[in-house]
Amino acid sequence: MAKSMSLLWGAGSPPCWRVMITLEEKKLQGYKHKLLSFEKGEHKSQDVLEINPRGQLPAFKHGDYTLNESTGACLYLENQFKSQGNKLIPDSPAEQAVMYQRMMEGLTLTDKLNSVIYYEWFVPEDERHDSAVKRNREALAAELKLWEGYLQTVAAGSYLAGAFSLADAIVFPNIAYAFRFGLSVGHYPKLAKYYSLLRNRPSIKATWPPHWLASPQGFDILKDL
Amino acid sequence: MAKSMSLLWGAGSPPCWRVMITLEEKKLQGYKHKLLSFEKGEHKSQDVLEINPRGQLPAFKHGDYTLNESTGACLYLENQFKSQGNKLIPDSPAEQAVMYQRMMEGLTLTDKLNSVIYYEWFVPEDERHDSAVKRNREALAAELKLWEGYLQTVAAGSYLAGAFSLADAIVFPNIAYAFRFGLSVGHYPKLAKYYSLLRNRPSIKATWPPHWLASPQGFDILKDL
Repeated sequence: MAKSMSLLWGAGSPPCWRVMITLEEKKLQGYKHKLLSFEKGEHKSQDVLEINPRGQLPAFKHGDYTLNESTGACLYLENQFKSQGNKLIPDSPAEQAVMYQRMMEGLTLTDKLNSVIYYEWFVPEDERHDSAVKRNREALAAELKLWEGYLQTVAAGSYLAGAFSLADAIVFPNIAYAFRFGLSVGHYPKLAKYYSLLRNRPSIKATWPPHWLASPQGFDILKDL
Repeated sequence: MAKSMSLLWGAGSPPCWRVMITLEEKKLQGYKHKLLSFEKGEHKSQDVLEINPRGQLPAFKHGDYTLNESTGACLYLENQFKSQGNKLIPDSPAEQAVMYQRMMEGLTLTDKLNSVIYYEWFVPEDERHDSAVKRNREALAAELKLWEGYLQTVAAGSYLAGAFSLADAIVFPNIAYAFRFGLSVGHYPKLAKYYSLLRNRPSIKATWPPHWLASPQGFDILKDL
């Protein structure tokens, strides 16, 4: 099955990583894939634009079907391969409700992280304002505190919605990203514990961003948050 | 079942409208609901914050379960009430792939509409730039052209992914919103046809924003797009 799948991806990109974790969890190894460079602008190349007209990664295909929206791809893979690998959508209504809620909230977390980490990438020089930087940082801190709170209420050493689920596949890359960019373990102890719990999960280890392995030292842009 | 559901909503808000369409499609009428005013800041009221800590609408509950993310709520409702009302996730892999892809792309369309229509709401006065307004409008036009293209390839008078699905429940409110704010029927004929097809669907008529009925005249901010 996985032989008919192909993925164009960028290293460290949470949307790409979500799809790769889900493919591992569903035992869909062996798909074709190609690592592209955001720095070189390869996400705007013709190869990508033919699959993903917004010029974004991932650009994912299963046979003739295109699924570039990471959350859409994860939902599709779980629904098409329900009985293969790990089950990623819980049956109980209570856990299912939390799962869908956290999964979609994960996209807000991505946006708020990007608005701080990539401010200078997204905003042209003469449109930048210290007041916007400050507001974005405050919004990100408030967002991260929400997640810290969510993890207070789950059982010790647990996942976001019972067993490991699509919510974790979608949210974890954001959390790893936050720590890579300097988030303080002392300020966010529950997030740090969640990060420690999941980072050694086989699906996550197998898909760890290669350039993070090559240079384990991250950045400190979030350290005072 | 619907008696155990409650919705705090704002009129015309695409995220609220999505959930209301889905509730209608699943024959979940009779839920408790309360219309709040964004203008009066009621989305930041304590009633909302207790359910939705980001102070956003919708704030939706099914019994003890909270689903504030509109797409999450729609997915949950379809999965919990699969055999009730209309089936909103197609079975065929081809249609399912398109459905998940379009459903999630719908959130990008929302963001791009908001960045134009609510620019002055979101951006403090001394951080506004004509160059940003121009870029946001160009990005929205490119986005709308993508959707115009998607509708070229579906059968005449058709929905986004075969029969009416969650993709339509999630995307339609954005399209209605665009025409409410002046989008040109001449510039986007396929979107206009899609809008005409869906606006009389019972689930959509039943949930049409009340203040749009009261004052059918819209705005013209998007007319030159």
